[in-house]
Amino acid sequence: MVYDALFSPKGVAVFGSVKPGKLANVLIHRLIEGGMEKIYAVNPKGQGVADVPGKEVKGYPSVLDIEDVVDLAVIAAPAATVPAVLEDCGKKGIQAAAIITSGFSEAGNREGEEAILAVSRKYGIRFVGPNCAGVVSTQDHLLATLETRPPEGNIAIISQSGAVGGSLMAMAKAQGLGVSKFVSFGNGLDLNMLEFLGWLKDDPHTKVVACYMESVHDGRAFLKTLAELAKVKPVVIVKAGRSSAGSRAALSHTGSMAGADGVFDAAIRQCGAVRAMSLEEMFDICKGFAMLPPVQGKRLLVVTNSGGPGVMATDRAEEVGLTMPEPTDGMKESLYEFLPSFASVKNPLDITVEGTGEQYEESLETALQEYDAALALYIGTPYLKSVPIAEGIAAAARKSGKPIAAHIEVGSDIQEAREILARAGIPHYESGERFVSALSKMAAYEERRRAPLGTAPLPAGELKPLPAELLEPDAKQLLRENGVAVQQYAFVHSEAEAAAEAAKLGFPVVMKIVSPQILHKSDVGGVILNIGDEAGARSAFRKLAQIGAGKDFRGAILSKMLPPGRELIIGLIRDATFGPVVAFGLGGIYTEVFQDVVFRVAPIREETAREMMAGIKAHKLLEGVRGQGPVDFDRLAALLVHVSELPFRYRDLKEMDLNPVFAYEDTAVAVDARMLKG
Amino acid sequence: MVYDALFSPKGVAVFGSVKPGKLANVLIHRLIEGGMEKIYAVNPKGQGVADVPGKEVKGYPSVLDIEDVVDLAVIAAPAATVPAVLEDCGKKGIQAAAIITSGFSEAGNREGEEAILAVSRKYGIRFVGPNCAGVVSTQDHLLATLETRPPEGNIAIISQSGAVGGSLMAMAKAQGLGVSKFVSFGNGLDLNMLEFLGWLKDDPHTKVVACYMESVHDGRAFLKTLAELAKVKPVVIVKAGRSSAGSRAALSHTGSMAGADGVFDAAIRQCGAVRAMSLEEMFDICKGFAMLPPVQGKRLLVVTNSGGPGVMATDRAEEVGLTMPEPTDGMKESLYEFLPSFASVKNPLDITVEGTGEQYEESLETALQEYDAALALYIGTPYLKSVPIAEGIAAAARKSGKPIAAHIEVGSDIQEAREILARAGIPHYESGERFVSALSKMAAYEERRRAPLGTAPLPAGELKPLPAELLEPDAKQLLRENGVAVQQYAFVHSEAEAAAEAAKLGFPVVMKIVSPQILHKSDVGGVILNIGDEAGARSAFRKLAQIGAGKDFRGAILSKMLPPGRELIIGLIRDATFGPVVAFGLGGIYTEVFQDVVFRVAPIREETAREMMAGIKAHKLLEGVRGQGPVDFDRLAALLVHVSELPFRYRDLKEMDLNPVFAYEDTAVAVDARMLKG
Repeated sequence: MVYDALFSPKGVAVFGSVKPGKLANVLIHRLIEGGMEKIYAVNPKGQGVADVPGKEVKGYPSVLDIEDVVDLAVIAAPAATVPAVLEDCGKKGIQAAAIITSGFSEAGNREGEEAILAVSRKYGIRFVGPNCAGVVSTQDHLLATLETRPPEGNIAIISQSGAVGGSLMAMAKAQGLGVSKFVSFGNGLDLNMLEFLGWLKDDPHTKVVACYMESVHDGRAFLKTLAELAKVKPVVIVKAGRSSAGSRAALSHTGSMAGADGVFDAAIRQCGAVRAMSLEEMFDICKGFAMLPPVQGKRLLVVTNSGGPGVMATDRAEEVGLTMPEPTDGMKESLYEFLPSFASVKNPLDITVEGTGEQYEESLETALQEYDAALALYIGTPYLKSVPIAEGIAAAARKSGKPIAAHIEVGSDIQEAREILARAGIPHYESGERFVSALSKMAAYEERRRAPLGTAPLPAGELKPLPAELLEPDAKQLLRENGVAVQQYAFVHSEAEAAAEAAKLGFPVVMKIVSPQILHKSDVGGVILNIGDEAGARSAFRKLAQIGAGKDFRGAILSKMLPPGRELIIGLIRDATFGPVVAFGLGGIYTEVFQDVVFRVAPIREETAREMMAGIKAHKLLEGVRGQGPVDFDRLAALLVHVSELPFRYRDLKEMDLNPVFAYEDTAVAVDARMLKG
Repeated sequence: MVYDALFSPKGVAVFGSVKPGKLANVLIHRLIEGGMEKIYAVNPKGQGVADVPGKEVKGYPSVLDIEDVVDLAVIAAPAATVPAVLEDCGKKGIQAAAIITSGFSEAGNREGEEAILAVSRKYGIRFVGPNCAGVVSTQDHLLATLETRPPEGNIAIISQSGAVGGSLMAMAKAQGLGVSKFVSFGNGLDLNMLEFLGWLKDDPHTKVVACYMESVHDGRAFLKTLAELAKVKPVVIVKAGRSSAGSRAALSHTGSMAGADGVFDAAIRQCGAVRAMSLEEMFDICKGFAMLPPVQGKRLLVVTNSGGPGVMATDRAEEVGLTMPEPTDGMKESLYEFLPSFASVKNPLDITVEGTGEQYEESLETALQEYDAALALYIGTPYLKSVPIAEGIAAAARKSGKPIAAHIEVGSDIQEAREILARAGIPHYESGERFVSALSKMAAYEERRRAPLGTAPLPAGELKPLPAELLEPDAKQLLRENGVAVQQYAFVHSEAEAAAEAAKLGFPVVMKIVSPQILHKSDVGGVILNIGDEAGARSAFRKLAQIGAGKDFRGAILSKMLPPGRELIIGLIRDATFGPVVAFGLGGIYTEVFQDVVFRVAPIREETAREMMAGIKAHKLLEGVRGQGPVDFDRLAALLVHVSELPFRYRDLKEMDLNPVFAYEDTAVAVDARMLKG
């Protein structure tokens, strides 16, 4: 298998000049440092490297001269020679390559990449790069990179940027965080984010996956792979390029609100991945996932020896949606059995400056019977020992089996204490707050993992084209045929028909002009409200016919005046990356004021629709304020689900706004509809 | 002066047992470590400390036995003996003390504190503590604390919590951040946050003040002192206890929305102080203030050698309200004079992996002619040198005189490079994003310093009591007398009067019942809308009289039905800490849904009123959406200013809601008013 060759090669050939200071030379030193046994230098002069005591790396003018098995090529030869190098690799039967060499598409040299692709396809070679930072597999002693060597561990790091990859490796080392695999795929000409996410699912050494990304290529394939991986192990993603620079052509209302990042964010959460907003936060979260058992709920206990740090952790917990309930009365009694009376047996549980390691241990162990996770805070002075505290915390973690993290600071032996924690598998955080933030995302991951959503199955049936015209009656007719609840209406073509249909609908009614040449109906007086009787309906139709004279007048659309309802917007866009996306938010004038809209990749399930409704800032409005009851969530959810399926029935439906949708306690209907072809 | 004695004493007496391991012994060692010359041990046995080579600290049974000048007492003697110790200090003429000893009010011993206060007042001794972490003044070689010794510098740290104070000192040392003064005042029985904030204004060694606080005692005095200090030097505050636990009794609508933290946050910003949300952020901001020249605007340039880190900084800049305009065409030309053609001359300015120290220097120096501040990012590999880069950045900072910060990472000589930056006064940040966040707060501080707001002068005149009753007509009458624009109304007492006044106001009108026994008028049918003529007015009055029968019916209040306007709320509360506070926000149903309300400590100036209007999330609504023009900001501002003065005219006005206030393009009026006495 290609990934076996890539990550655990039996022999590695390094291509390129091995003069001191040259890339291939450095790479060979790194491979030796990592513990790789069989390394071969390949360069025109057949020079080897012999300056590491006890380790001679022999040189060959061609890889074909090597008699042993070589299954990974690490290429640092000049760009122009890479195709020929790959040709030899192919002949030698090498399956995998890491092309470190730069000077390809990133420098405008696309032909070079074409040449590489041609050779690699011919021989079935899979490769990372070119212009990449290399590959690391700590468990396989493979250190084929120029970047910092990380400790061995269970976090896989995939970075779309070499520089960020380098930062991440340096950060991992500085924090003592163990890495299983590292790949920075550079130009990503062959193996890419998608392939590695797919493969890591089954890598037994990887417990957590950390990704840094800047763009997504095949959006739907990415989401599918991501969702499958996230079901098995946590994936923490930092995505750069959140800011609004990359804006979309905004034809619809919904489109104008869908910043590129809003859709990306929704998409990866829908797949169960975890979003981090900085590399720092990514490591905080990965550290928790790497070291702790799964977080089964949101109830956090804080044990501390001083007030301030406990309060700051509590503040953060409230902000990120964790709960910090007080211990139950029974629990308080149990705690007072070994805590002094002046301890503050609340949450935070303050065992005071006199708190001992045993008290940390017993408090944590006892209280964790009621909580899902605990944070142990200890602030000493330079004259106190923190080792006994660390030992107490470690003992509690062993016994309780629940997630415990710690922040211990200031003490003559603080380093030793932190090492005790690390050995006991207890993550240490720079501050209590940072653990609290990470914990909330860990808890959300487990919650989502228990009830994954993803996208719904595609609706059955063939894709059809939209009708030739999409005037309001056409759009409403189409919606109705597809199960989308639309307010009752009549499309009328004469005064008499207007009067008769108005009477059937029930007064008062509203009448709107229908003409392909009149898009902004209100501006030309083409919307007449509050029509009270048949005579009014006749005169209204007459008026619209006058307005429409000479403008391809098709008639008028009539509907009943609705009582005030909660005004919402439901929309569709086609995202450049992820394709059809459904939107839900507050409608009316407040849409623009608050931009209170959430997105999901379509099609969606009913549960996703419910999550969307709960996810807008104005969700209280839906639940009911000032004595109102909740809106009809069932019908709204059905509306959303049906709308989300439309792009999979009509191939040329580009964007749509249902604005407003009126939601009542006993129903929900789209009142206006606008569709765009494309 | 007492602060001279406290921070730069000529002689220090340490009270308490000096046996090894005892507090006084440790304190004496710390004082020696800090470089204090004249130290005396005072304890019943008259024992000294002689285990530091070349430094003998003599012991005395009483401070009165010391012949030299002693002006600071550091007290670690048992709690029960502290009053007697202070008595001796008084007799010796000592003016200042740091009482480290615990076991006072924090342990229920209030009598002990009373005794201390009695003696200190008798002799005019000022002190920090008891139960405090001590005092540090690096420039004066005073290290009277158990906490970590920080490097010398220009940041003063005041902490209400000893443990947090200890953390802060450890963090300062770890980050190499220089400290001028440190005080943790423990129980704060005498000298407190207020006194130190006042004093630090004139401390020549302090450029920035960092405060950790948990509560405020004399809110108005605190704000006055804080505003005066913030005018002179930046004050960065972390306040713990943001979460909603400490809730208020919410009688009014405004009151229910004023979380304790919302008011605190508004109050300190009004004073020009900077709020940080974590200790980490506090240090990030303090580091910038301590090392950089003032930030004169929001235009940031990022120079980088790689894409990813630059994009992440850009994302953050947009989030925190900084701008990153592209270089002008002229500037681009200048940059291309020394940059290669493959450099990306945008913002971020990417000089690529081949970027040299000279290119960093020239790019920064050239571009800073157009920008207010710059961030230099450099990500190397373990085999590259970062020292030349650091030297380039340092040279640019020297020449440009504008704020430059850096993040440089990965390199064989990274430590050395960071030291070069530190020596050049260039702050190094853990990530580019963290500098960007800090920079936005630094820029906001300078902006506010140029146009300080604080509170307005109190209105002239004596405080009056409110009228005995505060029914709607009374409240509206009072508002009108005080310049608050209220919608025109008539208070009527008969059918005839109702008809006549309604005709005067102009139809349609709304009529509301007036009765002290009917608070929720709508619930009993006491509000009649859309009255179209005199007959309607008569019948409406009749109906209200029936509803009010037997319920102390006083009549009805009449006003014209208003056209739909932008619905706002203006309110007043008395905050437990800061006293009268004025609120402004979105009215109507969305008040509850979005809780979109801002606060300011009253009374306010017109500029503050404008800032409040711009500060709500729905400010776009005020500016006008969907073709509306802006509201009448002048009249709204006047309304806010007049409301903010009311609590200073009426001593028993506890809370008030003007809800709704209707704002139009050409006016703004309060439509309903509710006042609470208290």
